[in-house]
Amino acid sequence: MNDIKKILNNIRAKGPLVHNITNYVVMNSTANALLAIGASPVMAHATEEVEDMVSIASSLVINMGTLSDKWVESMLLAAKKAKEINTPFVFDPVGVGASKYRTQTALKIIETATPDVIRGNASEIMALAQLTNSTKGVDSTMQTEDAVVGAIKLSKKLNNTVVVSGAIDYIITGDTVSKISNGSPLMAKVTGMGCISTSIIGACIAVEPDIHLASTAAMAMMGIAGDMAAKLSEGPGSFQVNFMDSLYLVSGEIIEKEIKLDE
Amino acid sequence: MNDIKKILNNIRAKGPLVHNITNYVVMNSTANALLAIGASPVMAHATEEVEDMVSIASSLVINMGTLSDKWVESMLLAAKKAKEINTPFVFDPVGVGASKYRTQTALKIIETATPDVIRGNASEIMALAQLTNSTKGVDSTMQTEDAVVGAIKLSKKLNNTVVVSGAIDYIITGDTVSKISNGSPLMAKVTGMGCISTSIIGACIAVEPDIHLASTAAMAMMGIAGDMAAKLSEGPGSFQVNFMDSLYLVSGEIIEKEIKLDE
Amino acid sequence: MNDIKKILNNIRAKGPLVHNITNYVVMNSTANALLAIGASPVMAHATEEVEDMVSIASSLVINMGTLSDKWVESMLLAAKKAKEINTPFVFDPVGVGASKYRTQTALKIIETATPDVIRGNASEIMALAQLTNSTKGVDSTMQTEDAVVGAIKLSKKLNNTVVVSGAIDYIITGDTVSKISNGSPLMAKVTGMGCISTSIIGACIAVEPDIHLASTAAMAMMGIAGDMAAKLSEGPGSFQVNFMDSLYLVSGEIIEKEIKLDE
Repeated sequence: MNDIKKILNNIRAKGPLVHNITNYVVMNSTANALLAIGASPVMAHATEEVEDMVSIASSLVINMGTLSDKWVESMLLAAKKAKEINTPFVFDPVGVGASKYRTQTALKIIETATPDVIRGNASEIMALAQLTNSTKGVDSTMQTEDAVVGAIKLSKKLNNTVVVSGAIDYIITGDTVSKISNGSPLMAKVTGMGCISTSIIGACIAVEPDIHLASTAAMAMMGIAGDMAAKLSEGPGSFQVNFMDSLYLVSGEIIEKEIKLDE
Repeated sequence: MNDIKKILNNIRAKGPLVHNITNYVVMNSTANALLAIGASPVMAHATEEVEDMVSIASSLVINMGTLSDKWVESMLLAAKKAKEINTPFVFDPVGVGASKYRTQTALKIIETATPDVIRGNASEIMALAQLTNSTKGVDSTMQTEDAVVGAIKLSKKLNNTVVVSGAIDYIITGDTVSKISNGSPLMAKVTGMGCISTSIIGACIAVEPDIHLASTAAMAMMGIAGDMAAKLSEGPGSFQVNFMDSLYLVSGEIIEKEIKLDE
Repeated sequence: MNDIKKILNNIRAKGPLVHNITNYVVMNSTANALLAIGASPVMAHATEEVEDMVSIASSLVINMGTLSDKWVESMLLAAKKAKEINTPFVFDPVGVGASKYRTQTALKIIETATPDVIRGNASEIMALAQLTNSTKGVDSTMQTEDAVVGAIKLSKKLNNTVVVSGAIDYIITGDTVSKISNGSPLMAKVTGMGCISTSIIGACIAVEPDIHLASTAAMAMMGIAGDMAAKLSEGPGSFQVNFMDSLYLVSGEIIEKEIKLDE
């Protein structure tokens, strides 16, 4: 718990620059979430500059939500650069399995540079783990629990951390499995909450070298801010607003009191 | 009325996947509106995957708000695929008439694959109907009533449904004209309300084969959610938030009580 | 003060069409801010149509927040066209100095067509003024006051208006320096507030030929709406909502009463 408090305080003290190559749908809310938690977002995707941006950033977030040719090229350049200079890097394989193009792109990114963290919903993680290739888009259509086996295999194969998010969030590093059960059903009614959690992981790995701990901290911040926001909200519109306020207002003390962590 | 209630309930029960190729400005709010009403949005635009996405979707939305070369190519591929496999398809010709490029693109899309529904404001529908080619951008500068004649012609020529939205929304299928007069002037002060209504039409035609009825239901849901939100709002910022909550909270009973339908 | 009231009233009376070529992150909030203040936004970036759009617009806003090849090409076409037909034009050199690509692009735009106004934070203006080329991304990492010297030089060289925004906003035209000290620290916690102020400048220069005055009016509207919103807000989420409402509700009388102008 004290470790999570420390990570939150470090983000607020240092304002780490988090470089996002992410999708059009969530750019605004992702940037706002990073600002609310205390980080400093930059969005840049041109092949001409992604390496420069990775070089000045404290972490890299790659999210393939609305991918196309040129963007994939940039993602590969940025991922490669991140590994070269040891910048921590989190990957969100949005919708992997929903089209051949997404599956191929996700595998290409992972082969080019192993992400320190991969975060997805159960379907996406299963697709990546090649236990299934029949996801129905970007929504989770499987039991989160069923994906944990795949996630453990994937984590062992890649020697990294895999996060399966859902009603319960699983943070998996080899055989180490941490569970966070904070959060509200309203989170599934707002677009980009998964993408935002990936970027918050980006903020946490920017200040904390223990990747499993940093990922756990990120999912705790998300879930607790979700709990706080849900109490104040009538529906997904007000939830979104209150969620941003909550990311801004969440404190180490609140985390200590509210966290539902099982490890 | 009972039909409209049934459509709303079906969207919530089935959570149909609505594939949107839409503009950068409204992607986030469109995705959130679809989630709020109970549908499942996917945004994808790469030529490499649009056909795959259309194949798993229950309906297709094409909106040319921020178009460019590659995107037009994808729109044409997706529209063609939709017709091939009988996936219902709605088209939003944003700003048609404001530039030669927009006019040409709109005509190209309609020639490639007749949309089941076309929704626009009065200027856009007039431009499409070739009664005028002097629109002043994306805002309606004409009386909605004046566009109805053009819309009837357009609908007869294309043998489809045309929606002219404004203070009064006209749903037109040949000589059948339904009017919805719900909604608030604040809707014109928030970007993308037209685009959102097009995507809500996408959600309705995904579950209801009667295209005229589905389009009427969509405009009713929009207008009534607008009425609900306006009562709670100080300005366009709070309206946007309350509108998303209202789309989430609107029920068959509320629709029954509040609808202002003239047919 | 009466001049600023007149500009606000003119925007609301005329609803000038403001053509934005801006970044993906802020397109939605920029369009909403322009609508809230009374202007009519259009977002269009295709090389095929930007000249047509500039031709029907009352002003042009170029913002290089998420630039890439094709977009830069469009920016140059649009800027050139604006100068040709005397459409006033404001430029936001987001992140200039953070990558070679951004620096080159900003210089290319300025060389192609001198913007009537350039607005940036202290780092960006310093980078442009070539007094420094070591900015750390899109956040201001310098004292605003330090950038004023650079801004004066830049303004004299380009014979235009330069706005350095921050806790205090400086509007600089040669040796004429106006300061606005309205605004809230919460503005730095919401993405795109700088970009929004650039577009509000766009709305003001669309109706007011005195560019220095128009830029001052824009920064006053921003700052006062920020003050109004901050009083009602718990954090950056609610601030964003209240800010849009405030832009809609701000009046000449409120400006008269609240403005903190030093010139």
